[in-house]
Amino acid sequence: MQTKRSKLIRAPQRGVYDREQVHAILDEGLVCHIGFAAPAGRPVVIPTAYGRDGNLLYIHGAASSRMMRTLATGVDLSFCVTLIDGLVLARAAFHHSVNYRSVVLFGTAQLVEDLAQKERALALFTDHVVPGRSAEVRPSAPNEIKATTVLALRIDEGSAKVRTGPPKDDEADYALDVWAGVLPCGVSYGAPQADPLLRAGIALAPSVRDYRRPG
Amino acid sequence: MQTKRSKLIRAPQRGVYDREQVHAILDEGLVCHIGFAAPAGRPVVIPTAYGRDGNLLYIHGAASSRMMRTLATGVDLSFCVTLIDGLVLARAAFHHSVNYRSVVLFGTAQLVEDLAQKERALALFTDHVVPGRSAEVRPSAPNEIKATTVLALRIDEGSAKVRTGPPKDDEADYALDVWAGVLPCGVSYGAPQADPLLRAGIALAPSVRDYRRPG
Repeated sequence: MQTKRSKLIRAPQRGVYDREQVHAILDEGLVCHIGFAAPAGRPVVIPTAYGRDGNLLYIHGAASSRMMRTLATGVDLSFCVTLIDGLVLARAAFHHSVNYRSVVLFGTAQLVEDLAQKERALALFTDHVVPGRSAEVRPSAPNEIKATTVLALRIDEGSAKVRTGPPKDDEADYALDVWAGVLPCGVSYGAPQADPLLRAGIALAPSVRDYRRPG
Repeated sequence: MQTKRSKLIRAPQRGVYDREQVHAILDEGLVCHIGFAAPAGRPVVIPTAYGRDGNLLYIHGAASSRMMRTLATGVDLSFCVTLIDGLVLARAAFHHSVNYRSVVLFGTAQLVEDLAQKERALALFTDHVVPGRSAEVRPSAPNEIKATTVLALRIDEGSAKVRTGPPKDDEADYALDVWAGVLPCGVSYGAPQADPLLRAGIALAPSVRDYRRPG
């Protein structure tokens, strides 16, 4: 998966090319950030939802959206998912860091026109954010499917970067009276808030009751 | 702060141009995603740390890093911070969404060469991730400052997008036996993990003991 462009120039010890680890990071993330050149040529970064099916990533949006229309023309894009695992507090300001796992991919998106593949992708978007949810809800109707553009990106070129573990200070600084360590962090979920318009007597959905991210 | 390029074409009801809200989102975020064209012309998105000082955003990296060297040439960039506040579960797959606050900015970065400004920016990076931390640690030494490239971006062009509240379903779907609502989410912090090499008798730093994000 490593090409000249995606090879890590800095901090190669943080580079990871293992496909399983790339998939695990992609599956745990909630949103991605996509970068591309707008029609006028200047770069844009947009956060958006996504889903993964094997070696394919799907993104979607309103058929009228500027991003979807631009990406559908096959322009180069970069796709990034970042998970923050901890704040790394060193004894020296210079050595402060963040424990993270990120994936940066490169490629071009292809329009998904096959109806069955498009329906499968739409279910994946729902299940990516809330595993099991697509089976609980009204599936997308033909007019909704038509109003949605789905694009596919192959996971072929790119890499993961991972930092874990305690701070690394300069030898002399270990003598300082400064607390050092890691403040772990991650995404947590609160108590579900029922829609104020929810009809009486409807139990909390299993997908929400048993909610957890993969990984 | 709205220009033709940054004007929201889709979902204008989610667009926010208020500078205070933009600043609040930037202050609460831990990392940003920066998009730019690599020297070969293709887009790259990279997650990185940042700090804010009034209407200036700072980013930094090793003087030798490819991203810093490219951005320092003044190429156009896009800067994005995204906060995820909740998963929005509708009765229809089509209406699932995410509650979020995001800022997307456009501009070019300027190299910070003034030593005092550079030192101030370096303290801001530390304090952005861990408020109050810079006063607890060894400040950066001249050789560390020299090895770090600091770039500044003016918060002039761009916008915030915000989605809040319950799902919005089609009228007919409110009759369905499907639970709908919001699963709130956010970043949470675990128990601090002392560096295994921490000398005995050093108390937890106040910045960690009292840790909280702004906002």
